[in-house]
Amino acid sequence: MLVDRNPLPDDLAADLRRQLAFVIEVDQMKAVIRETVIPSVDRCENDAEHSWHLALMAIVLREHAREPVDLPRVLEMLIVHDLVEVYAGDTPLRLQDDQQEVREREAADRLFPLLPGDQGDRLRGAWEEFEAHETAEAQFARSLDRLQPMLMEWMHDGQRWRDNGASAEGIRSRLGIIADGSPALWDVAESLIAEADRRGWLSPDEPGNSVGF
Amino acid sequence: MLVDRNPLPDDLAADLRRQLAFVIEVDQMKAVIRETVIPSVDRCENDAEHSWHLALMAIVLREHAREPVDLPRVLEMLIVHDLVEVYAGDTPLRLQDDQQEVREREAADRLFPLLPGDQGDRLRGAWEEFEAHETAEAQFARSLDRLQPMLMEWMHDGQRWRDNGASAEGIRSRLGIIADGSPALWDVAESLIAEADRRGWLSPDEPGNSVGF
Repeated sequence: MLVDRNPLPDDLAADLRRQLAFVIEVDQMKAVIRETVIPSVDRCENDAEHSWHLALMAIVLREHAREPVDLPRVLEMLIVHDLVEVYAGDTPLRLQDDQQEVREREAADRLFPLLPGDQGDRLRGAWEEFEAHETAEAQFARSLDRLQPMLMEWMHDGQRWRDNGASAEGIRSRLGIIADGSPALWDVAESLIAEADRRGWLSPDEPGNSVGF
Repeated sequence: MLVDRNPLPDDLAADLRRQLAFVIEVDQMKAVIRETVIPSVDRCENDAEHSWHLALMAIVLREHAREPVDLPRVLEMLIVHDLVEVYAGDTPLRLQDDQQEVREREAADRLFPLLPGDQGDRLRGAWEEFEAHETAEAQFARSLDRLQPMLMEWMHDGQRWRDNGASAEGIRSRLGIIADGSPALWDVAESLIAEADRRGWLSPDEPGNSVGF
């Protein structure tokens, strides 16, 4: 663990010491680099920044959820949904496969038990709920997780869409999941796709054309 | 605004368009650089990462609040508490003064009205509550905001404490505020200060010696 470089003082209560070690361990979220390029400075985003941005979006955009959602649960899911990537790494949407799921489950088995008592199980529960994509809260959280990279991509004139040969149908087929959590935000995605297509950022719709990110 | 570089499509509903422009505007949190060096990679932290880390800490450490707190309110405050810095910049603790407060209020006057209806007022309310340091939720949020840089500093063997001539009393006087929100986390801070002192990282207690960050 990261904390092993400089263990916390021995006089701390054991459970609290484990909680703080966990807090230090997940600092590594700041070193998990995603492919998304952020608009404010020209560099790739990391998981910590991404998770914060989604939480902020949940607060600002909650009224656009398909049905009224429990915002605290959405926030909790968004704050923990990428934690497993400190061990499993980030996998761009176009490269996701079964192996990624195996890697992430192994990471979860290693990460969450670092917390004392049943706290790890409770955090894992939030991650599992996000992954299962069944509750209205998980679906809304996932909508934000898919829309945010689109907004970043929009601000970069579709650079990755162009680099990766994304087609309108390719994007729709992988991001259509946004509609499950928020039809209103799916309309936004459709509007961005249509305008990107008009501007010539997208490739023709042919089988196998990718989502672009 | 950042979005002016590539305005969103005209066919979006006006209020939603303003919300999305706000979401893009605050991407600049990822470019507000703090002095805290993070342990996972040797570089300074930005406001977006910091805000995410605090939200995660609130979830993990909530049982250590002085009194039971409304976690959703704590999370909301932590997610928005540094937003004004996209215009006002970050001010290290040892350099904070009245001018900083003026700069942040001006930034708030500019930032929050970007949101439609009363949404800006509601977000500003969360920021004001954090700043006022009166409610149990604000005090706990502030405890985390002060403890987190200490944990990062611990992982760097007190480098900034040493560089800036921090003394045990200097740190205690500026970070004692942690105790308001969480006596248990203040005990952690005291333990880190005592051990830092034993290791020779701190300067003698003389008037004017700084908090070190």
